Amino acid sequence: MKKNYLIPKTLKGFRDFLPEDQILRETVIEKIKKIFQSYGFDPIETPALEYEETLLNKYGEENNKLLYLFQDKGKRRIGLRYDQTVPLARLAAQYQNLVKPFKRYQIQPVWRAENPQKGRYREFYQCDIDIVGSESFFADVEIIILTLTVLKKLGFKNIKMLINDREIFKNISSTLIVSIDKLEKIGQEEVIKELINKGLTETQAKQLLTSLKKSKPTETLKKIFQELKKSGFQENKDYIFSPTLARGLDYYTSTIFEVVTNNYQVGSLGGGGRYDQLIGQFTGQDIPAVGFAFGFDRIIEAIKSLNLIKIKKTNTQVLVTIFSQKLFNQSLTITNLLRKNNINTEIYLNSQAKLEKQLKYADKKGIPYVIIIGPEEKEKNLVKIKNMKTGEQKEVQINKLLDYLNSR
Amino acid sequence: MKKNYLIPKTLKGFRDFLPEDQILRETVIEKIKKIFQSYGFDPIETPALEYEETLLNKYGEENNKLLYLFQDKGKRRIGLRYDQTVPLARLAAQYQNLVKPFKRYQIQPVWRAENPQKGRYREFYQCDIDIVGSESFFADVEIIILTLTVLKKLGFKNIKMLINDREIFKNISSTLIVSIDKLEKIGQEEVIKELINKGLTETQAKQLLTSLKKSKPTETLKKIFQELKKSGFQENKDYIFSPTLARGLDYYTSTIFEVVTNNYQVGSLGGGGRYDQLIGQFTGQDIPAVGFAFGFDRIIEAIKSLNLIKIKKTNTQVLVTIFSQKLFNQSLTITNLLRKNNINTEIYLNSQAKLEKQLKYADKKGIPYVIIIGPEEKEKNLVKIKNMKTGEQKEVQINKLLDYLNSR
Repeated sequence: MKKNYLIPKTLKGFRDFLPEDQILRETVIEKIKKIFQSYGFDPIETPALEYEETLLNKYGEENNKLLYLFQDKGKRRIGLRYDQTVPLARLAAQYQNLVKPFKRYQIQPVWRAENPQKGRYREFYQCDIDIVGSESFFADVEIIILTLTVLKKLGFKNIKMLINDREIFKNISSTLIVSIDKLEKIGQEEVIKELINKGLTETQAKQLLTSLKKSKPTETLKKIFQELKKSGFQENKDYIFSPTLARGLDYYTSTIFEVVTNNYQVGSLGGGGRYDQLIGQFTGQDIPAVGFAFGFDRIIEAIKSLNLIKIKKTNTQVLVTIFSQKLFNQSLTITNLLRKNNINTEIYLNSQAKLEKQLKYADKKGIPYVIIIGPEEKEKNLVKIKNMKTGEQKEVQINKLLDYLNSR
Repeated sequence: MKKNYLIPKTLKGFRDFLPEDQILRETVIEKIKKIFQSYGFDPIETPALEYEETLLNKYGEENNKLLYLFQDKGKRRIGLRYDQTVPLARLAAQYQNLVKPFKRYQIQPVWRAENPQKGRYREFYQCDIDIVGSESFFADVEIIILTLTVLKKLGFKNIKMLINDREIFKNISSTLIVSIDKLEKIGQEEVIKELINKGLTETQAKQLLTSLKKSKPTETLKKIFQELKKSGFQENKDYIFSPTLARGLDYYTSTIFEVVTNNYQVGSLGGGGRYDQLIGQFTGQDIPAVGFAFGFDRIIEAIKSLNLIKIKKTNTQVLVTIFSQKLFNQSLTITNLLRKNNINTEIYLNSQAKLEKQLKYADKKGIPYVIIIGPEEKEKNLVKIKNMKTGEQKEVQINKLLDYLNSR
């Protein structure tokens, strides 16, 4: 049978990250981690797979359908992580002697069987910060301030935290809340249609929205707002009371948050809130918890579209070329010198390639500097350095090479 | 119906990483990445899920059984990443205009439906380095040197690269190679038994092993060894020709590597080799490639058991306590000062807790310094710092606080 070569592809709704993307992603993750750590959050990781029963009925009925559920070879019903909050709650239930308040961050992919569309993928990263075991509103305040700080340090301007309290919805059923949550996305008219479909009359639906909009901040929110003001954050500019903010997930019990930016309107950059009863769903005994999940992929898209961080095609700073097979050792010595001094250096791996080809390679890869060592350079104990952007060439003594490159 | 609280657990063969583990893991990953980058390798990531056909029949028949294969809701046959080499080959086939040689690193979990046992898990991390698009033996040399450099920089002593060439097995069927590969693990006697089960006579089996052991390095290996010597690596100490090293995976075509250490005998720390025909399995056109996969979890276990890196329970350096509700603002000001200056700082979130409880919390969490600001300290514009290890307390002026902490 003749083999039919069908070049395989990335699964629909999934993405590969080539260096141009992945370098930016890793840069942002490193920055975020440092800020998380400065606030006293430590990292954890949980497995990609959980028992199905751990995941089911935690996110609301509509979201159950988006779970990636399977049966493994041992006939266990299992599922892929849908978010990082439920695995954290499972972990807090399982390791009950964790020192509390337990402040953790977690940066891992999650999987949702969504209909793929622009900006919506079936695998995406979340960066979560949570405080488990504190019922104090100071914990909510810390989560809000840390979130705003992270986004500001990433270069975002005009970011705003929408804040609400589920208390405001206490007499509204969770199916109605799911519809109210769509207000920003689909508009008032569509929401009213949905509410009517769910059994309200048009008058009731309109009344519900009108009365929600007139709600006043709860006592908890007042305390939080006061603390935010004390820390220098401005109402309406940095944060705002949003009585129709609902959040789609079932597990929130009190405060809910969502971050938006004027400059990038493709949905929110993340959301969170307090879920004081989620851990109790596992153990029968409630442990208070509050947290925030950054939508990492949206943040990356926004950083790119707003040019907040310079994109690099490669981390490599220098390509050392091979002038001739005879001079390979010279090039290798320089390469080793640079690598030992933490200058990211590639040596061209084919000692028979023409210099032109090697320069073209550096250009295509976006390597900023190329080093050439011919017989003359060897004799004079120097190297020729070409700046690939300007085309400028310069001769540099080997004992000055590190200084020269470090000063660029 | 009364709810039955069954506290959920981590799936069998899977692990959670609490801060004590995860901090070490992240420290090691950061170190490894920097060294990879210094050699001109750039990061990529691929999705956790691939089409089943991408994964099937790449690793050999026995390994097919270890694949996590499922059907998704769109009736697609899909599977979880089994290693990072096949996804890289798929990617190289899919993005044919990648600039080559393409040098990438990739650090992600992989999943194998293994029988869980000590040191063997169903989800574990691999750290891969690969060079795609170079047939030069210099590429093999670079992979070997980079591997040894990484392990040395992590603190490993007595590490050795076992090196062989699949050329030596050219007349031996791949099912027999699978058995020969177990020589180190199960011993000569058991391997002979397996070979007999696979159809050889006892004499043939013994002869096969004896003749293998007498093999001489191939021309490629000779060139590689010469280059390693030139770079200061010693035969038998740093690397060794191992004619019975086979590697279990089907896709290797020429050189194969495996790293072992005398000091930690729980299997190899990683393996690799050349797979010049794997990408061609997708496209019909071969692209040469060589790489190495570090067994990250084994390396972490070895680092722990050899005490190569100090274990930290937390990244947090300072806990700022709350003396009284009235003095909360003092504590918050100090906290903000430290955080802005990249000192990882936690503020105690309950302003009504007794000081004793707060100190106990710092102790349990392993936070090295505690700051106390009472009315006297406030008055004198200083803070009290307690070293939690020695118990020593010291008064430090606020304007000297950063210097004091940075010098610890």
